[in-house]
Amino acid sequence: MNFDNEKKTFLEKEDKSKKGSIDARVILILKVLNAHQDYYTTSSCSGRVYLWQGSGKKNETEWLKVSHELVDDDFFILENPNGLVWLRVEPFILHVACRDLAAVHRLLILARMQYKKSCLLSLGKKLIVEVRGSEFIEMPLYNKGRFLFAGEISFLTALVNAKLTAVFLGLERFGRLIENSHKS
Amino acid sequence: MNFDNEKKTFLEKEDKSKKGSIDARVILILKVLNAHQDYYTTSSCSGRVYLWQGSGKKNETEWLKVSHELVDDDFFILENPNGLVWLRVEPFILHVACRDLAAVHRLLILARMQYKKSCLLSLGKKLIVEVRGSEFIEMPLYNKGRFLFAGEISFLTALVNAKLTAVFLGLERFGRLIENSHKS
Repeated sequence: MNFDNEKKTFLEKEDKSKKGSIDARVILILKVLNAHQDYYTTSSCSGRVYLWQGSGKKNETEWLKVSHELVDDDFFILENPNGLVWLRVEPFILHVACRDLAAVHRLLILARMQYKKSCLLSLGKKLIVEVRGSEFIEMPLYNKGRFLFAGEISFLTALVNAKLTAVFLGLERFGRLIENSHKS
Repeated sequence: MNFDNEKKTFLEKEDKSKKGSIDARVILILKVLNAHQDYYTTSSCSGRVYLWQGSGKKNETEWLKVSHELVDDDFFILENPNGLVWLRVEPFILHVACRDLAAVHRLLILARMQYKKSCLLSLGKKLIVEVRGSEFIEMPLYNKGRFLFAGEISFLTALVNAKLTAVFLGLERFGRLIENSHKS
C-alpha cells in the first residue's frame, strides 16, 4: 500500500484516543499538515494535566482525573484516594506520517525551530515524526490518603496553569509557523 | 570530513559535560558502541537527580545539588533556599552519531526493544540517534524558603531512589543487550 492510500485509509478511521475527540487547539495544525500531500497526522494531544495511579505501564495505570484546559483548585482534591497518586502535566505531542525522508527532513527542520525535542521515531515501513514540547510535571500528590503538597493549593494550581499556558501559547505559535511555511 | 575522521576527532576531545567525567554505569555501553565502525557516542548521562531553580533555559538555570547515585534524606535539605526550587529526576540519555541510515535503522530497532522513546534527532549533516529512558520526576520542592513536600522525607527519598534504581537496572540490561547483539 503506498503513502497516498495509507493516508486516505488512516484519515477515514475514527478517533481512538482516550478523549475520543480532537483538541480544538491542535485542529489548525492538523488541517495544515493533512492538506499537504507529503504528510498526515496519526495522533495528537494538545497538552494536559491528570492524576494517575498504578505502575505507569499502559494496562496497569488508572486515570483519576484529566483536564485539557486550565484547572482550578478543586482539580487536585480527591475524595478517598488509595495508595500512591501522581500528578502529571504533559506537553503538546503530535505524530506525523511522512511520505519520504526528504519530507521528514523538511518537517524536522521546521518543528525543531520551536520544539527542540522533535525527532523521527523509526526508519521502518512508516516514517513517523514526533513533534513534542518540553513542559512537564511529575510529582507524588497523595499517599495512603495523605495530601503530599505542603504549600497553598492555589500555588500548585498556578504552577500547573503556568505550564499549560506555555503549552497552549506554543501551539498557537507553531500553528502560525506551519501555516506560513506552507504558504511560502 | 567523512564519518571516520569525525569519529576520530570527536573521541579525542575532552569531556565537556557539567560533571566533567563519564558515568561508570555507561562505560560498557560507550565502549561497545565506540568499538563498532558505524557508531560513536557524542554525549551520555546515566541518570541523575538534581535540585534546580531559574527559568529552565540553559543560561538561566542554576543547579543547587546533583547526584548520579542513590541519595539519602539530606539531599533534599537546603540551608537558605530562595524563590522556587524544583526537584528533577532524569533518565538515561545517550547520543550516538551513526555512519548512515542503515546504521541508524539497526541501532533504533535495538534501542527501542528497551527504550521506546529512542529516536533520530535530525537528518542533517550528522545522523544522531537519541536513546532515552522514561523515568521522570519534576516537582516544586521549595518556595520562598518553605519546604513543599508534606510527607516524610524518607518517603520522598524512597520514591527518588526507586526511579534511579529503575534507571540503573535498565542500563545494565541495555549493556548486555548491545554487547550480545555485537557478538552475534
